[in-house]
Amino acid sequence: MLHDFTYYNPTKIYFGKDSMQNLSAELANYGKNILLLYGKNSIKKIGLYDEVVKTLNACGKNITELSGIKPNPAYSQVLEGARLVRENKIDLILAVGGGSVIDCAKAISVSAYAKGDPWQRYWIDFEEVDNEIVPVGTILTMTGTASEMNGGSVITNEEVTIKTGRVYGPEVYPKFAILNPEFTYTVPQKQMVSGVFDVMSHLMEQYFSGDDDNTTDYVIEAVMKSIINSSRKAAKNPEDYEARSNIMWCATLGLNTITGLSKTQDWEVHNIEHQLGAYTDCPHGLGLAVISMPYYRYIYKDGIDKFVRFAENVWNVNTDGKTKDEIALEGIASLENFAKELGIPLTLRELGATEDMLPKIAETSYEGGGYKYMTHEDILNVLKECF
Amino acid sequence: MLHDFTYYNPTKIYFGKDSMQNLSAELANYGKNILLLYGKNSIKKIGLYDEVVKTLNACGKNITELSGIKPNPAYSQVLEGARLVRENKIDLILAVGGGSVIDCAKAISVSAYAKGDPWQRYWIDFEEVDNEIVPVGTILTMTGTASEMNGGSVITNEEVTIKTGRVYGPEVYPKFAILNPEFTYTVPQKQMVSGVFDVMSHLMEQYFSGDDDNTTDYVIEAVMKSIINSSRKAAKNPEDYEARSNIMWCATLGLNTITGLSKTQDWEVHNIEHQLGAYTDCPHGLGLAVISMPYYRYIYKDGIDKFVRFAENVWNVNTDGKTKDEIALEGIASLENFAKELGIPLTLRELGATEDMLPKIAETSYEGGGYKYMTHEDILNVLKECF
Repeated sequence: MLHDFTYYNPTKIYFGKDSMQNLSAELANYGKNILLLYGKNSIKKIGLYDEVVKTLNACGKNITELSGIKPNPAYSQVLEGARLVRENKIDLILAVGGGSVIDCAKAISVSAYAKGDPWQRYWIDFEEVDNEIVPVGTILTMTGTASEMNGGSVITNEEVTIKTGRVYGPEVYPKFAILNPEFTYTVPQKQMVSGVFDVMSHLMEQYFSGDDDNTTDYVIEAVMKSIINSSRKAAKNPEDYEARSNIMWCATLGLNTITGLSKTQDWEVHNIEHQLGAYTDCPHGLGLAVISMPYYRYIYKDGIDKFVRFAENVWNVNTDGKTKDEIALEGIASLENFAKELGIPLTLRELGATEDMLPKIAETSYEGGGYKYMTHEDILNVLKECF
Repeated sequence: MLHDFTYYNPTKIYFGKDSMQNLSAELANYGKNILLLYGKNSIKKIGLYDEVVKTLNACGKNITELSGIKPNPAYSQVLEGARLVRENKIDLILAVGGGSVIDCAKAISVSAYAKGDPWQRYWIDFEEVDNEIVPVGTILTMTGTASEMNGGSVITNEEVTIKTGRVYGPEVYPKFAILNPEFTYTVPQKQMVSGVFDVMSHLMEQYFSGDDDNTTDYVIEAVMKSIINSSRKAAKNPEDYEARSNIMWCATLGLNTITGLSKTQDWEVHNIEHQLGAYTDCPHGLGLAVISMPYYRYIYKDGIDKFVRFAENVWNVNTDGKTKDEIALEGIASLENFAKELGIPLTLRELGATEDMLPKIAETSYEGGGYKYMTHEDILNVLKECF
C-alpha cells in the first residue's frame, strides 16, 4: 500500500555529454556574484575548472573561490563560506564536485544569514530554516550521495568531534544540477565501486521495510537491477559511457526521494557505518558493503518475504524446490558475490578496524532499524560477524 | 545508454487518504480569487464539491465556478474560462476532476492573457507562451492521463472540428496536485479499466524504442509490473485501497516525464487511436487496447530484442527452448490476456467502428512510429487486424 506522502522535488537536472551547454542560460537567472566551491585539484586535472571559470567570465560574473572542501566537509569551512557569502553579497553558490562539496554548499546556503549559531540551531536542534537561503547550483563530478537532487547535508564539526547529517526541505535543494557522466571517468576505481555500493545501500535501506504491495518497491528493484548491470560493465571499462550514464542517473534516483515514497525505511546499516567511519575513516561505500551482508543475514527472518522477493526480482534466483530461507540467503549471497566482483573487501579488518573498536562502535550506533529493532547488543553481534 | 535530457518537474504532490488536509495551506500561497473548474456532477455525488467549497470559504476565498467541462474539453469552454479569469482577476484555477478538467485548466491558464488568438498561436503554431500564466492547482478524481504532473493539454475546437494536443513546459504544470485514491472508488469499472490500459499504453509507447541499456527502461518495467498486479486486484474489488493507491501513483509516474527520460519513444498507437476516437467516440483506453496487440504483432520483428525483454521482465514468460519470435509473441499474448481479464473488448467492431471507417482512419493518422516507420498502408493493415 502507498501510505500518505508528499513529493516535491524542484531541482532542474541537465543530464548528458552536452549538459554543460546549459550553464550560461542557468547563470542568467542569478545575480553577478558567484561563490565557486570545490574540493582538491581533480576538477583542474580534467579541465573542468577552466571551463567553468571561462563560462562565468563570459557571463560577466564576479567569482569568489573557496576550495579544499574536505571529503567530510568541516564546519569551519561552512563558516568560512558563510563569511564569503556575506562579504561578497553572493547571489549563487556554484558547487563543482561530489556529494561533499554539495553538502557543504547547502550548509553555507542556510548558514550565511542564520539568526544565532547555525550549528546549534540547524544541525543539533534541527530547527526550521527561518532566514534567507542562498541558491545553490551544482556540476557533479562523482556519483553516490544524490546530494545534487535532495536536501541532505552531512557536516563534521571538528571542534566538538561530531559528524552529523540533516535533510533539509526542497527550498534548500540545488536549483539546478549538471550531470555529465564523462566527468566521472577519472574517479579512481576504488571510489567508483564505493559509490556504487553506497547507491545499492540507499536502495536497500529504503526497500527492506514494510510488507505491503507498493509501487515504490518495484521502482527500487528497477534501479537496483540497472545499477548492478551497469557497474559490472564499468568495473571492466571505466570509460563505458552507457554504463557510466546509467550509474550516474541510478545514483540520483536512488536518493532523490522518489525511491523512498511511502516507505518506512531502515537505515541501520548507514547508522552503524557512520560510527565505523568515525573510528576507521574508511570509504563510506566500502564500510556499508562490509556491514550489509552480515546485517541482512542477521535480520532476514524478520522480513523473510521481502528477502525472498529481493532474491527473485533483483537477482533472478531460481526458486524451484527451495525453502524461503534458502531463497532469501541465496539472494544475500548474490549481493555478496556482486560486491566481490567489484573488488570490494568484505571484512572490517581489511578496512583498518581492530577488535577493540567493535564494542565502541556498537555502543555509539543508534538502536533502531527496519524489520528488526537492533539493540546495541545486536549491533555488536553483527560487527563480530563482519570482523 | 542515457541520451542527453533535461528533467524538471516542479509539481508538488500530496498523496493519500488525508491529502485533502493540505489544501488550506496550499491556498494560502495564492490570492483571494479562485476559479473552480469541474465536470459533471460526480464530484458532488462523492461529497467532494461540498468539502472543497467549505475549505475555500474557510480560507476567505471568492469562488467563481465553471462546470460541465466535457470529457473532450471544448475550446469554447477554454474561452469562457479565460473570460472568467480576466473578469474576476483569478489568482488560482482549481481543477477538480480527471485529465479533461486539468487539461482544460492549463488551456485557460495560458489563454486568459494571450496576445492574439490563443488557438492559432498555442495549439496550431505551437508558439512559446509569452504571457502571464495563471497558476493551476488540482484535486484528482480519475487516473490515467498524468495531466496532474505534466504539461499536456488536449483540446477540441468544435468550430473547426480539430482535436489537438500540446505539451507545455514546467511553467504550465499544476503547482500542486492532491491525489486521494479513495476519490477514484466510484469511477465506473469500464472507465477504470480504460484508464489502466491508457497508463499501460503510455508506458509501452515510451518503452518500445531504442536498443540501448537504459535505466529508464527498467523503471518503466517496474511501473508496468505494479499496475498490472494492482489492476487485477482492483478489477475484483474496486475499494481495495492498496490496489487503487498503486494504480493512482503508477498513472502519475507513467507520464510525468520520468518514464520517458532519454527515450526516443513511439506513440503510434496513440496517433491511430486519436483518429479512431474522432470516428467512434470510444473510450480512449479501450481504443488503445484494441489497436495495441495487432500493432505490436505487426512491428515486433523490428524490435525483437525489446519484445523478448518485455516478455521476460514484465510477464515472466518462461523462455526455455523457445525462439525469440516465440518468446516475443508470448509476451504480446500475455498483454492480450491481461486486457481480457480486465474485461476489455478486443475488436474495433465492439467499439462501434464500421469497415468503411478503416481507410479514413488510416489516411488521417500520422505516419511514423518507433521500431518501424508506419505508412498509411501499414496503419490500414493493422486496423484490418483489429476489426
